[in-house]
Amino acid sequence: MVNGAAALALAPAAAKAQAVQVSASARAVHNRLMCLDTHMDMPANLARQGWDVMTRHSPDMDMTQVDYPRMIEGGLDGGFFAIYTPQAPLTQEGMNAMRDAAFLRAAEIREMVAAHPGKFELAFVPADAARIAAAGKIVVFQSIENSGIIGNDVSLLRSFYKLGVRMAGPIHFLNNQLGDSATDKKKWGGLSPMGRDFVKLANDLGIILDASHSSDDVFDQMLAQSRAPIICSHSGCRAVHDHPRNLDDARIKKLAAAGSTIQINSYNEYLIDVPPNPARDKARRAVFGKMENLDKMTPADAARTLKEMAAARVALDKQYPSPRANFEMFMQHVYHALDLVGPDHVGIGPDWDGGGGVTGMEDVASLPRITEQLLKKGYKESQLANFWSGNTMRVLGKVVAARKA
Amino acid sequence: MVNGAAALALAPAAAKAQAVQVSASARAVHNRLMCLDTHMDMPANLARQGWDVMTRHSPDMDMTQVDYPRMIEGGLDGGFFAIYTPQAPLTQEGMNAMRDAAFLRAAEIREMVAAHPGKFELAFVPADAARIAAAGKIVVFQSIENSGIIGNDVSLLRSFYKLGVRMAGPIHFLNNQLGDSATDKKKWGGLSPMGRDFVKLANDLGIILDASHSSDDVFDQMLAQSRAPIICSHSGCRAVHDHPRNLDDARIKKLAAAGSTIQINSYNEYLIDVPPNPARDKARRAVFGKMENLDKMTPADAARTLKEMAAARVALDKQYPSPRANFEMFMQHVYHALDLVGPDHVGIGPDWDGGGGVTGMEDVASLPRITEQLLKKGYKESQLANFWSGNTMRVLGKVVAARKA
Repeated sequence: MVNGAAALALAPAAAKAQAVQVSASARAVHNRLMCLDTHMDMPANLARQGWDVMTRHSPDMDMTQVDYPRMIEGGLDGGFFAIYTPQAPLTQEGMNAMRDAAFLRAAEIREMVAAHPGKFELAFVPADAARIAAAGKIVVFQSIENSGIIGNDVSLLRSFYKLGVRMAGPIHFLNNQLGDSATDKKKWGGLSPMGRDFVKLANDLGIILDASHSSDDVFDQMLAQSRAPIICSHSGCRAVHDHPRNLDDARIKKLAAAGSTIQINSYNEYLIDVPPNPARDKARRAVFGKMENLDKMTPADAARTLKEMAAARVALDKQYPSPRANFEMFMQHVYHALDLVGPDHVGIGPDWDGGGGVTGMEDVASLPRITEQLLKKGYKESQLANFWSGNTMRVLGKVVAARKA
Repeated sequence: MVNGAAALALAPAAAKAQAVQVSASARAVHNRLMCLDTHMDMPANLARQGWDVMTRHSPDMDMTQVDYPRMIEGGLDGGFFAIYTPQAPLTQEGMNAMRDAAFLRAAEIREMVAAHPGKFELAFVPADAARIAAAGKIVVFQSIENSGIIGNDVSLLRSFYKLGVRMAGPIHFLNNQLGDSATDKKKWGGLSPMGRDFVKLANDLGIILDASHSSDDVFDQMLAQSRAPIICSHSGCRAVHDHPRNLDDARIKKLAAAGSTIQINSYNEYLIDVPPNPARDKARRAVFGKMENLDKMTPADAARTLKEMAAARVALDKQYPSPRANFEMFMQHVYHALDLVGPDHVGIGPDWDGGGGVTGMEDVASLPRITEQLLKKGYKESQLANFWSGNTMRVLGKVVAARKA
């Protein structure tokens, strides 16, 4: 995933949002299951003036993909809400700024829950998820995307654990002090020495290590070092689409053999070839640069700006047409992973509000389509229960069991 | 101030809570004023299972002194809500634990506000306070008591600034890595080198430096180094009662000359001599040691335990009688400071929920008594407006103006 201007510069406009058509029987199965998403970037929207998680939005309206009404509509019981921080220069000043922003984001997630105690509840262990979902509330686990926020002090991971974080990916788009990114040039050859300390501490605390965005070397080294399963919270299959953010079959099998799961992403550029187009990228940056200022605008100005940007995105995509993946292409990754390792080792992390979304699955309200397709493929409800949450809760349970208090 | 078991081990039992009798005219004046308290330890109660800030409690019920109903009853518009962290051993492990606890406490303050957006609002600059109080809501500034939570990394103060902290005292009961405490043996002879960096960064960020709990040397050195006024958020007058936590007249005058204010405390041992009594202290520790576990108890167990402890406190005070200051003794400090430097340089910080409270002023509901007494002394409403908030907001305004962005 990626947020803000960068994400939108990459993501083509969502097609016109339409009510998702799903058979009543598929929807009934879907609604019976506890459905969790392992990577949602929605928390980035919480600080936007006038943006209310309790209001139904749409991609056309303000380009967002997750809010409470759409979670209910999509039968999503919750999941991991990301504390995502864009990479700053790895100077002391840049690292401080990332750290400070991350603490504020963590507080904002907790504020969202505190503001709506009847709708959301913080979760820390698998039993919490079961209880909260049974009570009809959204299960709010917290995760970190880009653990470069800890600067030069690995022990800061403890502060985030204390705040409730139970999953953390060391790296994002660029190499950082913890190791190499899947989308950057090799620098460390995997984890840095600090990255190894990070893995050890995450194990000791009971935080799931998330290898999405990490280089293959980092994946291998984390898997080898970690005494509990690691996860890929939002990654696809390289055998379906050859992109470094996707996992090859051998690694998907290793993940499964270690008891874990690959959670399939719906990020356009990991699903389909998008030829470089500097003119388009420049035009998009000009439009989406305003996103950075949204937090400081009045609610009315922010809403108006977002609406303008949503319209501009449609216009830009007409002016500079570029390929956009569709639901079927996303499902090919799901099917491939299921064929390869079975329903106990696959789930979803579509990267909502972080650049995810495909034609036919524009936001979280579309999730029942996945269940419908998997039922058509012959998967049983008990298998889908694992796909939708059993697998990730099994991983969390193992990570908690392996912690050193 | 001090929290939890330590505070209660020092504080004698509150006398039976009674409705505070104040003349209608005094109450009318009091209610017209924006009243702010510069040091409240109430946030320590937020994590207690079943403790609800919106419910009226009493010292007899659970030994607490601040909640929303009593703030309204006492005409308190808000103030600085402390992120207080008890001193741990200054090992890496101890410092990490303090830091982690402080981040969680900061989040809890924001959660309180988020949970009751019609009753509380976060404040960062003086204009916020005026607007929030005018809207009939509680003004929530955040402060740090014991900045030892930043461990060996002074830049962590930035994270707390980002979360909203606008006042910070470097030191608490014991010397720490930033300098000497008023109640410990001289170690650094004032600020440590890191303490000087802390002062500089607080200035640069726009955080009020709070000298309460600091040694006289630290007070002098902070005053000399700081390019904006420093404050004493909860301290008394040494000329009235000779205790190292109280300020001598020369320093009160220096504070006033620098444009600032002394905020009078109501902590028993700073107001009256309490002879040492190891047997009593031991008995109190035995009772109040349970406080540490309150956060982990079920709401019912926590409420029952608190009620038992409140009763045990009364019994202990009968068994080991010890002197307890009264409202008039607290007011002697107020009068002395007012006589010395005038109403533009005095206010209150009674240390609620941190060991404060005297016979006749048991909790925040009692505050209108102060206004009544000051009106009797001939102070005008305009002077009381400064006493109750104008002074501290003037200090914050100067600190904000002197910041380096």
